[in-house]
Amino acid sequence: MSTALVILAAGKGTRMNSDLPKVLHQIAHAPLLVHAMRAGSALAPARNIVIAGHGADLVDAAARAYDDTAEVILQTEQLGTGHAVLQAKEALSDFKGDVIVLYGDTPLIRPETLEAMSAARDTYDVVVLGFEAADPGRYGRLVVSDGGALDRIVEYKDATDEERGINLCNSGVICASSDVLFSLLSAVGNDNAAGEYYLTDIIGLARARGLTATAVTCDEAETLGVNSRVELAAAEAAFQTRARQTALEDGITLPAPETVHFAYDTIVGRDCIIEQNVVFGPEVTIESGAHIRAFCHLEGCHVSQRAIVGPYARLRPGAELAEDVRVGNFCEVKNAQIEAGAKVNHLSYIGDATIGPRSNIGAGTITCNYDGVFKHHTEVGRDAFIGSNTMLVAPVKIGNEAMTGSGSVITSDVPDGALALGRAKQANKAGLAVKLFEMLTSKKRKQNEEAE
Amino acid sequence: MSTALVILAAGKGTRMNSDLPKVLHQIAHAPLLVHAMRAGSALAPARNIVIAGHGADLVDAAARAYDDTAEVILQTEQLGTGHAVLQAKEALSDFKGDVIVLYGDTPLIRPETLEAMSAARDTYDVVVLGFEAADPGRYGRLVVSDGGALDRIVEYKDATDEERGINLCNSGVICASSDVLFSLLSAVGNDNAAGEYYLTDIIGLARARGLTATAVTCDEAETLGVNSRVELAAAEAAFQTRARQTALEDGITLPAPETVHFAYDTIVGRDCIIEQNVVFGPEVTIESGAHIRAFCHLEGCHVSQRAIVGPYARLRPGAELAEDVRVGNFCEVKNAQIEAGAKVNHLSYIGDATIGPRSNIGAGTITCNYDGVFKHHTEVGRDAFIGSNTMLVAPVKIGNEAMTGSGSVITSDVPDGALALGRAKQANKAGLAVKLFEMLTSKKRKQNEEAE
Amino acid sequence: MSTALVILAAGKGTRMNSDLPKVLHQIAHAPLLVHAMRAGSALAPARNIVIAGHGADLVDAAARAYDDTAEVILQTEQLGTGHAVLQAKEALSDFKGDVIVLYGDTPLIRPETLEAMSAARDTYDVVVLGFEAADPGRYGRLVVSDGGALDRIVEYKDATDEERGINLCNSGVICASSDVLFSLLSAVGNDNAAGEYYLTDIIGLARARGLTATAVTCDEAETLGVNSRVELAAAEAAFQTRARQTALEDGITLPAPETVHFAYDTIVGRDCIIEQNVVFGPEVTIESGAHIRAFCHLEGCHVSQRAIVGPYARLRPGAELAEDVRVGNFCEVKNAQIEAGAKVNHLSYIGDATIGPRSNIGAGTITCNYDGVFKHHTEVGRDAFIGSNTMLVAPVKIGNEAMTGSGSVITSDVPDGALALGRAKQANKAGLAVKLFEMLTSKKRKQNEEAE
Repeated sequence: MSTALVILAAGKGTRMNSDLPKVLHQIAHAPLLVHAMRAGSALAPARNIVIAGHGADLVDAAARAYDDTAEVILQTEQLGTGHAVLQAKEALSDFKGDVIVLYGDTPLIRPETLEAMSAARDTYDVVVLGFEAADPGRYGRLVVSDGGALDRIVEYKDATDEERGINLCNSGVICASSDVLFSLLSAVGNDNAAGEYYLTDIIGLARARGLTATAVTCDEAETLGVNSRVELAAAEAAFQTRARQTALEDGITLPAPETVHFAYDTIVGRDCIIEQNVVFGPEVTIESGAHIRAFCHLEGCHVSQRAIVGPYARLRPGAELAEDVRVGNFCEVKNAQIEAGAKVNHLSYIGDATIGPRSNIGAGTITCNYDGVFKHHTEVGRDAFIGSNTMLVAPVKIGNEAMTGSGSVITSDVPDGALALGRAKQANKAGLAVKLFEMLTSKKRKQNEEAE
Repeated sequence: MSTALVILAAGKGTRMNSDLPKVLHQIAHAPLLVHAMRAGSALAPARNIVIAGHGADLVDAAARAYDDTAEVILQTEQLGTGHAVLQAKEALSDFKGDVIVLYGDTPLIRPETLEAMSAARDTYDVVVLGFEAADPGRYGRLVVSDGGALDRIVEYKDATDEERGINLCNSGVICASSDVLFSLLSAVGNDNAAGEYYLTDIIGLARARGLTATAVTCDEAETLGVNSRVELAAAEAAFQTRARQTALEDGITLPAPETVHFAYDTIVGRDCIIEQNVVFGPEVTIESGAHIRAFCHLEGCHVSQRAIVGPYARLRPGAELAEDVRVGNFCEVKNAQIEAGAKVNHLSYIGDATIGPRSNIGAGTITCNYDGVFKHHTEVGRDAFIGSNTMLVAPVKIGNEAMTGSGSVITSDVPDGALALGRAKQANKAGLAVKLFEMLTSKKRKQNEEAE
Repeated sequence: MSTALVILAAGKGTRMNSDLPKVLHQIAHAPLLVHAMRAGSALAPARNIVIAGHGADLVDAAARAYDDTAEVILQTEQLGTGHAVLQAKEALSDFKGDVIVLYGDTPLIRPETLEAMSAARDTYDVVVLGFEAADPGRYGRLVVSDGGALDRIVEYKDATDEERGINLCNSGVICASSDVLFSLLSAVGNDNAAGEYYLTDIIGLARARGLTATAVTCDEAETLGVNSRVELAAAEAAFQTRARQTALEDGITLPAPETVHFAYDTIVGRDCIIEQNVVFGPEVTIESGAHIRAFCHLEGCHVSQRAIVGPYARLRPGAELAEDVRVGNFCEVKNAQIEAGAKVNHLSYIGDATIGPRSNIGAGTITCNYDGVFKHHTEVGRDAFIGSNTMLVAPVKIGNEAMTGSGSVITSDVPDGALALGRAKQANKAGLAVKLFEMLTSKKRKQNEEAE
């Protein structure tokens, strides 16, 4: 059965206290909206429709950045969830299949949950996602009969005491065939205090028409909606708890999982060690058995087997570390291939470069890749030895088994096997340090006397 | 009504297991005592009296450092809270107004709470601060009649079972007019097991004299007293929880609020992003929309709109970042103005300097500001390009649109538009790297053979 | 009474999802097995026997690395705990004394607990370690009579409802004389569902023979066994909670104890301050009153009184900081003595070196200690002033009160009191920066035009 996603993302999110539209606030380095789209992508949807309103341009850009087939429809007035879904009616007029309605501010729904809803559609006309609430409070309750059919959704204010005793609550996520959904929605009215059209009302209408409905149940955490920054932080925390648990189960060692911050797409192999206080930005893959030491910051990079990174290493987009590579403390690597067994151990900046196998990059080495306008490339061959504090002024090429003297500024290529030096001769001026120091302290003494 | 604070700060704090007087231990970078003084300052007190005992000299210095009008009175013997307050009697002999008694080891009382106490004085002669205890344990209970009047304070050991069922407990914070307070205190005796004079006893005496009393209620967390380092850590945690919650409500994005550590006076604007593991020292202000990345450490600095800091940046006192400035990884900035749009992206130390608008400071640049005795100033103009690993030996001035070659040691001024170079010419010695390496490995081989 | 430890460490730990044997996974930088051995060492055992199976070679190496007298016995088949202990029978055939059976995957037992078990052996023939379980679940229950004698251990499946109401559960840790233990074990059968020999069965056999038994009780946390990485992380968390609590009680200031990660053997003196996000590797000692600032990483080092370290300082094995030393941000120190009052404040690498008293090491200084094959030593005398970005090419010696100019590469010794310079003269090329920049931007413009 072909599926279309309709993701409601028009709300302003006043309680966020932000200029940014609510659904573009991020958890784990992806906008809330993208988390919802990613969950929905488990159903391989034929159509991806986002209903935007406040900040629609920004929402449009974010949706298409994630999925260039996304269709963003503007809801000029916000008249309730039912009204929002109706905005997709025209776009889906030729679509035959199921529509699943998701929320752009509800980032934690699992793909498995949506698959279960889709499967339940084989038996029922309308499928609603419910959750057992720890504290049901004022949520709408799902009234389910013994056979598993969903009889109706009761709003809290309309519920009897018995119905208020039900813990199964309405998440708002709904699945039905396109025909059924839009037919029912056309019948939804706005005769309520808020004057809004509620998507939820279609259940009652469906049952009245003799259609069947059921509820699929998920963890309450999956339905966490974000309406404030406190809830945003709670969603981030829930995401991280889930990611850390998964990582442990996948055979990764995390001595302090609560201090490791994953991105939405981080991939880490088995028997890796991720020490304390590691932050992952997007697009990081770590192969099995690699070791990320404390205080590392990684984004857009690849780390191969047995590589050891950190502590205090920063790998930026395009950093590719081969097997057995070592990147040490206070080192930054950007857009650079570090080949097998090479070492960049201390206080270095390696950007726009290739470092050959087994080469050793001395402490304080910098690839001078920027001339103020252009970025240039540095190439270091295999088994080279770059002395401490070497400036590699790109574009420049250091040959295989070549060497640079520490403190050298290398502006032209160094042939294979050659030693390059670029530094002034040392001169010792006898007694001059003592004389200089005496001069300075005597000046200081005079200043102090004058100040008195 | 004029108000005088009397802050009790004489205790030794034996359970702190420390050489430092208890009230000088810090949370959020201010001594406990200063937190109490800051809360009290909400009442714009005419007098600030601190009763000191153990470590009185240090307490005196800390009190005056925060407020140079503070009066520190020595309590040579510690004979109870009533006795402690009496030490202020003489100093306040001419004072007409309210006295509020605070505790130097109770740092979390909110200004609003003290304002509520002060307001309650319009109606009642004596006002006591109470809190609803989750576990009342052995706290003194506040017995309040239906009309809201405080009848008496019952110590746990003297309480009936019914009274022990009361959850409203005594915090010890008390407010009364100076006349009433000292008159009542003169009547307090020390006929108890500890032989001490208890401030609390003034409630019974007041009611016996026909005076009125009431209790103002606050959150239990506000009354948390610090008697051990475990409690100190708990107070710090409570402070941080409150500060993080406030930051989220103020419209600041904190992906991992539990990893951000605020100082007592940190100011952060709306729509700022503060990433993971950021530590604020005192006197930091961040304007709206700035972005502080992971692993930053800031103290005594100002960050303007749209500036991006970190990861791994350290801003020290006197660092002032203008709009759109970028300070990147492994950079330290101290006592320096970085003007609009300037960039200090990698591995640099900028101290005692001015960096002009849009200038780019290359990786590894250091302002050599210290000659062993004096500190000197570096000035970089607008649109300058400082090559990687440039040493700017202060005092020195780099002109507008000037440039320095990477690896240069700049000891004299560079005119506007000039290029300054200070480096030796590169020489490549063909084959020498291979020869050197062979020599070293052969030496190593011999050593290994000899070792066998 | 002489004691022998028998530590069961043969299990594979399938649920760890790891190539490493379970007991070699670490908490607080020591393998689980070593934690058990350390706890046992409180009894000054005459014999240390480890029963290994899966990954026996690696287990053997780890056990001997911690204690070279450890005897590792291979259990080729895993037929239950009773069978495992029997593997030690032959090795202990001449041993007269108590045997205590511990588990290599149970790292949190306190030495005091084992001492209590040993003391209970004065009165009872067999001593079992029990714990009051918060949720007894399916643990075996200890049935203790009024006098304190342990009557029997009932497996959950065999327990009556009344017995299931018992909260005192079996930890599996047992102590008995060697004679009694092995005599009882010989009688244990494997007539159970798993076909295994259970150590626990000896209690029933002992009571049947008229021997006495008792249970010593410990905290449930001490008996936490590790069977998965989730449990490994839980054990690490429990260790850290305990270590942080102890540190606070010992008079150490930890503003955010939950962010400090101790190693199993970290020693920190009274009135030290350990700020946020500090990670300790093994073998660190910190003297009283030292101050470790935020984001530090320490291993194998010693920090003396009043030294201030960090933020962002990394001390590696062999770093020894004397009194009043200062090591600042983005500095790495390895195998180096930093003598009293010396300062290494910014962006430096000091390895294989001695820095004399009161010497000042400028920002960006690097000891070039590695020539690609050998490591060499750098010696800096007292009261020396090393200019910023000095390369100290080892082996090299800088004299007392000597000075180096910033940006110098120092390849030969500098006498006492001398000033060493090794840098090219600065040349300013008027207008050349502007010209260069125009050239580059014009090239850029052309490229852009061509791209259109």
